[in-house]
Parts: sequence; structure tokens; C-alpha cells
Amino acid sequence: MGSAAAGPAFDAAELRALLDGRWASVREKVRASLRENDLANADDLDTESHRARTLEQLRLLAKSGVPELGFPVAQGGGGDQGGSVVSLELLAGNLSLMVKSGVQWGLFGGAVVALGTERHHERYLRDIMSVELPGCFAMTETGHGSDVQRLRTTATYDETTQEFAVHTPHEAARKEYIGNAARDGRMAVVFAQLITGGNGNTGAKSHGVHALLVPIRDEAGNPCEGVRIEDCGRKAGLNGVDNGRLYFDRVRVPRENLLNRYGDVAEDGTYSSPIDSEGKRFFTMLGTLIRGRISVAGTAGSAAKLALEIALRYADARRQFDRPGGDEEVVVLDYLAHQRKLLPALAKSFALHFAQEELVQALDEVQRGGDERAQRELESRAAGLKAVTTWHATHTIQTCREACGGAGYLTENQLAGLKADTDVFTTFEGDNTVLLQLVAKGLLTNYKDQFDGIGTLGLAKFVADQFVGAVIERSAAHSIVQRIIDASNKDDILDRGWQLKAFQDREEHVLDGLGRRLRKANKDNAFDVFNNAQDHVLRAARVHIDRLVLDAFVAAVDRCRDPRNAELLDKLCDLYALSIVEEDKAWFLEHERISPRRAKAITQAINTLCGELRPHAVDLVEAFGMPRQWLTAPIATGAESARQGAQIAHDRANPLP
Amino acid sequence: MGSAAAGPAFDAAELRALLDGRWASVREKVRASLRENDLANADDLDTESHRARTLEQLRLLAKSGVPELGFPVAQGGGGDQGGSVVSLELLAGNLSLMVKSGVQWGLFGGAVVALGTERHHERYLRDIMSVELPGCFAMTETGHGSDVQRLRTTATYDETTQEFAVHTPHEAARKEYIGNAARDGRMAVVFAQLITGGNGNTGAKSHGVHALLVPIRDEAGNPCEGVRIEDCGRKAGLNGVDNGRLYFDRVRVPRENLLNRYGDVAEDGTYSSPIDSEGKRFFTMLGTLIRGRISVAGTAGSAAKLALEIALRYADARRQFDRPGGDEEVVVLDYLAHQRKLLPALAKSFALHFAQEELVQALDEVQRGGDERAQRELESRAAGLKAVTTWHATHTIQTCREACGGAGYLTENQLAGLKADTDVFTTFEGDNTVLLQLVAKGLLTNYKDQFDGIGTLGLAKFVADQFVGAVIERSAAHSIVQRIIDASNKDDILDRGWQLKAFQDREEHVLDGLGRRLRKANKDNAFDVFNNAQDHVLRAARVHIDRLVLDAFVAAVDRCRDPRNAELLDKLCDLYALSIVEEDKAWFLEHERISPRRAKAITQAINTLCGELRPHAVDLVEAFGMPRQWLTAPIATGAESARQGAQIAHDRANPLP
Repeated sequence: MGSAAAGPAFDAAELRALLDGRWASVREKVRASLRENDLANADDLDTESHRARTLEQLRLLAKSGVPELGFPVAQGGGGDQGGSVVSLELLAGNLSLMVKSGVQWGLFGGAVVALGTERHHERYLRDIMSVELPGCFAMTETGHGSDVQRLRTTATYDETTQEFAVHTPHEAARKEYIGNAARDGRMAVVFAQLITGGNGNTGAKSHGVHALLVPIRDEAGNPCEGVRIEDCGRKAGLNGVDNGRLYFDRVRVPRENLLNRYGDVAEDGTYSSPIDSEGKRFFTMLGTLIRGRISVAGTAGSAAKLALEIALRYADARRQFDRPGGDEEVVVLDYLAHQRKLLPALAKSFALHFAQEELVQALDEVQRGGDERAQRELESRAAGLKAVTTWHATHTIQTCREACGGAGYLTENQLAGLKADTDVFTTFEGDNTVLLQLVAKGLLTNYKDQFDGIGTLGLAKFVADQFVGAVIERSAAHSIVQRIIDASNKDDILDRGWQLKAFQDREEHVLDGLGRRLRKANKDNAFDVFNNAQDHVLRAARVHIDRLVLDAFVAAVDRCRDPRNAELLDKLCDLYALSIVEEDKAWFLEHERISPRRAKAITQAINTLCGELRPHAVDLVEAFGMPRQWLTAPIATGAESARQGAQIAHDRANPLP
Repeated sequence: MGSAAAGPAFDAAELRALLDGRWASVREKVRASLRENDLANADDLDTESHRARTLEQLRLLAKSGVPELGFPVAQGGGGDQGGSVVSLELLAGNLSLMVKSGVQWGLFGGAVVALGTERHHERYLRDIMSVELPGCFAMTETGHGSDVQRLRTTATYDETTQEFAVHTPHEAARKEYIGNAARDGRMAVVFAQLITGGNGNTGAKSHGVHALLVPIRDEAGNPCEGVRIEDCGRKAGLNGVDNGRLYFDRVRVPRENLLNRYGDVAEDGTYSSPIDSEGKRFFTMLGTLIRGRISVAGTAGSAAKLALEIALRYADARRQFDRPGGDEEVVVLDYLAHQRKLLPALAKSFALHFAQEELVQALDEVQRGGDERAQRELESRAAGLKAVTTWHATHTIQTCREACGGAGYLTENQLAGLKADTDVFTTFEGDNTVLLQLVAKGLLTNYKDQFDGIGTLGLAKFVADQFVGAVIERSAAHSIVQRIIDASNKDDILDRGWQLKAFQDREEHVLDGLGRRLRKANKDNAFDVFNNAQDHVLRAARVHIDRLVLDAFVAAVDRCRDPRNAELLDKLCDLYALSIVEEDKAWFLEHERISPRRAKAITQAINTLCGELRPHAVDLVEAFGMPRQWLTAPIATGAESARQGAQIAHDRANPLP
């Protein structure tokens, strides 16, 4: 049935090149490194051994040279943040290692790079790259995970000793879920409310959240004085990562340990910063840490691809129920219901892949010197894609588990681990619901003239005040999209121009309506007006991201040269676009954007596209180039097809009497 | 904020009584037994210890007298299958124990009761109840999980020795995922194609799938001769249950080991059965095993309630983001988006609870002597509710995990375990997609005049041939529903009559359309016509179950006497009904059942209902009476409210400078 035996009916090399994109050589380097090192996941070990093995693998990975990519050239790094995101993505088969890498090099190392200055870079970065200095990123507190501007840990400067005293005032302020804390970390970047003039209890002033380097363990691995460390214990997944809790009892660190790029304290306690507003300063700091969020989106996308490859390979071999009028059992992927479960998810994986590639390019451009507007657009897009891609992963991996039946529940077939490990992706690096509100806030700045109270009413804070008047509008693919729309005069659901216009029109309409609703807010009813519209706010963000993702997919189809590839990508793009319209069919009907007749035609078109793509499904998912080391599930690597073959042969030789 | 401190604003005792229903005394007995015995889940142990502990707990449970409930009075049981289902449900806090119980007493014991005759009952049932004889239910094979009529294991009668030879002809025919097999089972009920006249290889005849008792381990725990046992290894969850694989190499068992209620073999090899048709015989056998499917639905429902209780208690204590214009942070459950995540799921839990209660009553009635039609209705409803309730559990527990953020990912807060353990519920005891097709097939028999070829075309088989001309129509609540519809002349979305009519009308319309589509099937296109309509088939089943569930909820509201309780249940019922309409709003718009204006009103009504129910949410979920022993999550048992209290007190005393 599948075309795998005969080879793909398209130019696989060109498609791989298109998918590998600008960082193709990084991808190849990581694939090679995975062939050479044993980085297999160790989920079958007990917690302590699993953590130990993950640390060993982290050191192996350090030696491969890959993790240096994202670090400054001055300290021997590659100066390529985009490459570093792409390389993390490919660790999807060992997510504990991916997250441990993300903590060590992305969060801990990344914070030292972005928030520190040369003295920190010179002193620490080499040891961070080599894992000589394992570290933590201690931002989240038990009481504050989403609203991190309200963290309660304090760092009070004492000019008499030129030290900061880092302190946890109550249990809700302990640092929580901190990766590398329970077992391996020696130092932590601790985020705390910075207070100067506080040692005499007069003239104390707080300057908002800043980050400091705090040693947490000595060379022997014992907690430093005043530092209490607890183990978060077992989690649903990612048990190779040692998450812990940190409590500080007036722990003293030298003044120089303040990561002082955006705010500094002089010996005499004088505070200075290049950014006046406390809020803007903090969100500027957060903005420099955007890479972590982008990595999570990329890795979630990879995990979904791996799950889809397992489920599609199984569905292409597995048979169940006799074919009416035939003498063989039906291959499961021939059932429409099964295609409906897996193929729209495959199309969406392609769409999100191209959107992620654009996002990483935007990161690269901003890193090489973008203006504030480019930075704000990057943040909005990273937030939105992180939410959409991690939900896609959660949903798709769940669907793949169910599509593989009982076999999907066995650990050996990988889906259980992928599910458990990725589950927290919708939460960490920003809770998805909060992130979507942040996207919406960015969009609403277009409307700020209409309700200019948004800043003063406290509403801005409420939506998460990351955006300072930015206008988020255009996708990178804007000109291609506009050309297609301009060229289109067809009113046909398979016409790309119609699809693009449908997405654009929906986005504009939802946002307009939201603007009108929120305009009613005044000083007294601000919370209620906003809260009553919260579902509308989330929808505005979602339809915006949907549109950006479609734009990215359309641009990728436009880059494709081989006509067979273009034809298949075209169908995948149709399937993505129409699936999104179908999911939200109620909106399109309610707003009379489509007629009932057209609504039915969309459902039928999706069924037809599923049938047309079905013979290519396995080859298409393989085109993503997930490292072959990660594909270990017996049901996806020959066991099921061998069994089905043996059964068919046996049945022919031994029919039941 | 929550009303918990002040006590519920309704009559909690009456609501508990209404929810506990007919088996209230069984529920109280199980709650008491859980207080007296240590049945806490042991997920933190390694696999071997976890399995050992689960077996110990099974024996503890046996001593409580609860498991005897479902067994025949003649052998010392309680003769109460309904009570046995209800008691299993309450084990939701230790799902490995629940599943191990289900295997031992429900599946293994249940098969001996239902398929065996007195000689088997007298010889084995007491040892099964006491767990002297741990056993397996060996139906599923690697190659056949859904289409069990096509199992490949054979049991060939040899009249020269008066034995059956049980044989696994190839790998796809090995018994797979068999609970109790890897470690503890001594005997298995093995389902196999029964062949007589086969020892001479002439005149052999097969009679379809039958069940036999096959010893698999000796007293010392070693596999019996010819039996090979493999361990399925780690699974996503339920690791206290020792699932394994069984291979039989012409294993000989005495003739008397055939469970011979529905088919027997005489000493000379003559086959006899009270049911002529091979298909009907097999599905009659399967029908007697329906209790397992009903237990899975009940337990899934319980697990969802427990998850909701954890998430609601946390959301009622947790605060995040300042309230604009206020000086406190907002309690998370006050956010509309959070209410939207949890409250419709709470309403659906109530709806499914009452539907499950009706289903268990139907089981009880059929067990006490129902006709074939009642049996078929029971099977259809069990299939449909199992699918809908297990998907509800998967979806709700996932939502609860996300709603608890990082805390939800920690094992100590229970959601990780609930997720992992219940994940396979959508698969075992019937894959949900296959079950919905089975429901649809039952509904389609109403249309059999229109396409009477359905039997001969092989279509019937394809949809799963469990229904023999049954007509599935009425819910138990039929008369109440009809009275409400007749009394209603309002065209108001909050009018119960309008809601009931909307559900009924949708069911009829979807089914009519499906009938018309399938009528086009003929000998040559049968598979394609059916396959192209597969999404329509699944939808027909789903809307049918939705209607039955609403009917059950309406009947329960009708039973409620306390006006405050009735008012709250009314709101929950509105929320359930309107949430279902909103989920399927596209259908109602597409078929012009509601106008765009009304569609918007439904969304607004749901938001309003969420706000009205929010103050009662914690009390309402507590009314389900989940045993308090199961609620161990620190975030749901005081840790979070203590932290928030301490933080507020600290902030007041120590404002940031």
C-alpha cells in the first residue's frame, strides 16, 4: 500500500533541502553527532541513574561542539543563535537531554550572555559551554510563574560590605521547578527585586526585578551557606532533569555578581540603568531571553513529527477488519477516520515547520541588530507560535497514541514517553493562555487611540505589559501573500487566494470586534470588561497566529522548484488551510463568510485531500529528517509488517476449516 | 472567595444522596473500606515492587467482602453486578488496583461466570473471589484487538485423548497486553477458534471463537509446559498491573475446560450449541461480558471528577496578576478563561454521572432477566458511554493538568498519574472509534429496509456485527423528556424543552442523512461508500449519545426535591446542554437550526452560567463524594492556600520600598 518500498513519488532530496532550510548544515552536523554518540534516552532507569546519565550525555554533547554555536565568538562560541535553536530541536528523541541542554546553555548561559557584561562573559562562559560550571535559571517562584514581574525574592544591597543579600521572605517566594537545582547545579542566575539603600532601613528603594549570579553548591556538591535545596521529586516526564526548589536565607554575594547590562549598582549603592521605566527595563531583559521560548516551540514541533512518523508507519502496516468483497484485511491508514486523525496533523506539522523556520530567521536578524519594533514582533511571534505549536504537539501525540491502540501505550513504542515529556511544554517558558493574551495585547496596540486608558487603567499590566506601543502586522511572506491575493479572483475553496483572504478577513474582523468591546472599559469596570471578553482576546491571538502560519506555508510552497514537490506541498497547504477553516466553521458560518453549502464542500474537500495524500504520507513524514537514532519503536521499524506478512502467508497455507 | 469555608449554599446531603443513587450503601461500604485499609497507590515504587504491592492490595480488597458482590449467590457472592461496577468506580485513586481488580474479578471471574457452567462455577469461583487463583482474560492478540472474531489462536479437539490442543500459529496470534499474565496469573480464559474433527486432518470443522480455561503457571509460579510468557514491560501508566504476552505450543487441556454455556463438544467430538449462527453466538458471548466496558466508563468518570476536584481547589486558592483597581491578586478561578476550562467539564461530569447510573441500572435489569432487545440496547449504550466518558476523562484530566501549571506536572499533585493511568481507557475494552461505529450500526438497523443489503454486502461485519436487528430508540427518561418537550412552547436557549428538541432534532437529521448516503452502497462499492461516510457514521453515534446523556441529566433534575439543589442542577444542565451545542455550533448554523444571533447568545449564556456557578464549583465537585483518601495533592489540600495567606500577610507587613 505505502509507497515506501518503491521510493517516494517526489524529489525527496529537494524536499529535505527545503525543510532543512537555512540551517541545513547545522542539522546535518547534529544528525552526524547523534550517529557518533550514544545519546539514547534513558527513561528506563531509576531517577538517580537517569539524572546521572543525562548529565553524562550533556557532557558528551558539549564535546561535540554543537552547544557552542549560540555563544559569543569572543569566548569561542559560534555567534549563531538560530543554529543553536535548530540544533536543540533535533534532540526530540531524548527530551530530558534537550531540556537539560536548554537549561544549561539556553537559559543559564543565555542569561549570562544577555544580561551580563564582559566581566561575566570572560569569567564564566567557557565553563558554561564545557559544563565545568553546571547552572540554573532561577526565575519562577512557587507563587509567581506567569506574573514574574511580581517575584518576591529580594536582593538588598549593603554598601557597607558591597554585597547583595539574596532572600526568600516566605514559602511562596521559593524558587520552584528549577532545572539543574536538585542535583547538579553549582550556580544560579537568580531573579529578585533589587533594593538599594536598604541596609539602614531608611531611604530604601526598589528597582524591580534584576538577575544575579548566586553560588548554590560548593565544589563538593554541598549547598552553600544559607541556601536550602529541595528536590521537586518525580514529574510526569523529563525525569532526567533534576528540578528543585531554592530557598535563600540572606545569602551574601559580591556586588559584581549582579548581571548589570540593564541596571547596575555602584559601590556606594547608587542605582543606574540605560532604561528609565522599571516595567520597560524588565521586559527588555525578558526579551533578550526569547531564545528559550523559540526552542520549546521548535522541539515541540519535532516531537510531534516523531510521533506522527511512528503512528503513520504503524498505520501503513497494521491491518484490521476484512475488506468487504475482498480477501485481505484493510490497512488501517486506508480508513477515512484514521486519515482524518493523522493527515491534517501532518499538514499542520509542515505549516508550523515553515513558520518556525521564519521565526528562527527573525531571531537571527534581531540578534545581528534589529530595531525595537523588530524585537517586539519577534517576541509576539515567539509567544504565539510557542502556544500554538506546543498545543499541536500535545494534541497530536495524544492522537498518535490512540491511533496506535494498545501498542501505543507500551513504553517501547515511544509515544508514552513523548507524551509525558512534552506535556509541560504548554506550561513552561510561558503558560500558553498567558502567552496568547500577550499576543493579543500586541495586536491591540493598533487600537490604542480608541481606548487610550489601557495603560492607565491597569489593563495593560493585566494583559501582560510586554508591548510598548508596537504594531504587529506583517509576516515575512507579506509580499508573496499580497501577490497571490491580488492575482486571485476565484471564489473557490481550493484557490490559495481565497484561503488567504479568508484568514486575513477573519483576523481583522475578530480584532475589530475586540477593540470595540474593550473600548467600553473605564476606571471602574476595567477588570470586568476585560474578563468578560477573555475568550474573545484568546481567539484574536489564535486567528492571528493561524494567519502568520498560513503565510509562512504559502511562502515555502513558493520557494519549491520541483513540480512534483510543489504539487504535494500545495495539497498539504490546502489541507492545512481547510482544516483550520473547518475547525472554526462556526465562525465562518456565523459571520456569513461561507454558506452552508460551502461548509459541506470544505468537509468533502478535506476528505478528498486525505485520500490523495494518503499514499505519500509515510514518505512525507520521513522528509522531515528526524534523526534515525530516535526511531526505535518496534511497531514503526518493521515488527508489525513482519507480523502481518507472516499472518497472511500462514492464512494462505492454512485456511480455517 | 470560594464558599467552602462557609459551607455549601445548597443541601449537600440531598445532593450526595441523589448522586449516590441506588447503590448508595455500596458506595458507603467502599468508602469505609478505603478508610480501614491501606490501598494508597504505589506509583513511586519500581515495577516489581509496585506489582507486588498491587497484588497485596488485591488480597486486602478481597478480604473486605466488596469484590464478592458481583458473583453468584450460589457460590457465596452477592449477585449484584451493578453494585460491583459501582464499587470498582470508587478505586479511581489507585487505578492499577482498579484494573487488576477488573481483570481478576470482572474479566477472568466474569468470563467463568458468564461463559462457564456449574462445574466451572463450583470448582473455581471461590478461589477466584479470594484470589487463591489469580487469573487472566486472554482475548486480545497482537494482530487482532478490535476485530476479535478473527482471532488466530486455535483450540483443536482430539477425541482420542478428549483434550483440546491450544495453539499460537504465528506471532500476530500471541495473546497481548494480558493483565495478570507477566507475574501473577495461574490460569487464563483463552479465546480461540474452536475446531473439531481436526486430529485426523479430515472432516475438520471450525465453530468460531470459544473460551477455554488454560493453566499457565504451576504452583511454584513456573510457566506450564508449552506455555511461553513474555512481559509487556513498562507502559505509560498502570505499572502495578503485570501485562504480558502468552504463546501456546499445542498446549493440551481436558475437554471439561471448555467454558461450555454457549457451545459444547461431546466426548466423540460432536459440537452443539443453543445458538445456530456462529456470528450471533460469538456476539452473545461477548454481550455477557459487557460489565467490563461499563466499569471502564464508570472509572474514567471518577478519575475525571478527582482531577476536577484537584484543579478546582487549586484554582480557588491560587492567585496571579494584580486586579486592576484593586490591591490583591486575582484568584485564578475568577478568570473567565479558567472557568471556561473547568466548569463545562464539571457540568459534563454531572451529566455523565447520571447517564452512568442509568446504564448500571440497565445492566442490573438485564442481569435479572432482560429480553434480547434490552440486552442489545444495553450493549449499544455501554459502547457509546464508554467512548464518550473515556474521551471526556482524557480531555478533562489534560485540561486540569494544564490549569494547574507547573504544579500539575509534579507527581505529588496526582494529575500526572491520573493522566498516564487513564490514557489507555480510550483503547481497552473496545477502541473508542470502533465502539462508536458499533453504536451507529445499532442505530442504522432502523433503516435496514432502505438498504437491506447491509447484511449481505459484508457491510454489517465491517461496522462490527454486534447488532442483530435491534432498534435503539428510547432513553429510560423518555416519558419525562416527552412531558417537558410537550409542555414547552418557548423558543429560548435556556428553556429545557428547546434544548431537548435541539438534541433530538440533530440526532434524527444526522441519522437520516447517513441512511440516505449508505443506501447507495452495492456489492461493488460497499467499502468505498461506507469509508467515505465514516466521519458521518461517527458523528451519528456521538450525537445519539449526547442526547441520551442529556435525557439522563434531565431525569435527575426531575428527581431533585430541594429547590436550591434543583436550581444549581438546572444551571449545570443548561451549561452541559449549551456547551454541547456550542461545540457543534457549526452544525446548528449549517443546518439553519440556529441563527447567527442565537449562536452569539449561546456563547454569552455559557459565560454567564460559568460566572453563576463559579462560587459553588468546589462544593459541587465535592458532592461527588470521591473517597477523601484519594485526595492527596498538596495543592488541593491546603498547601497553596497556606502559601497565599502567608504571602498576603507578609506583603501587608513589608511593602516593597
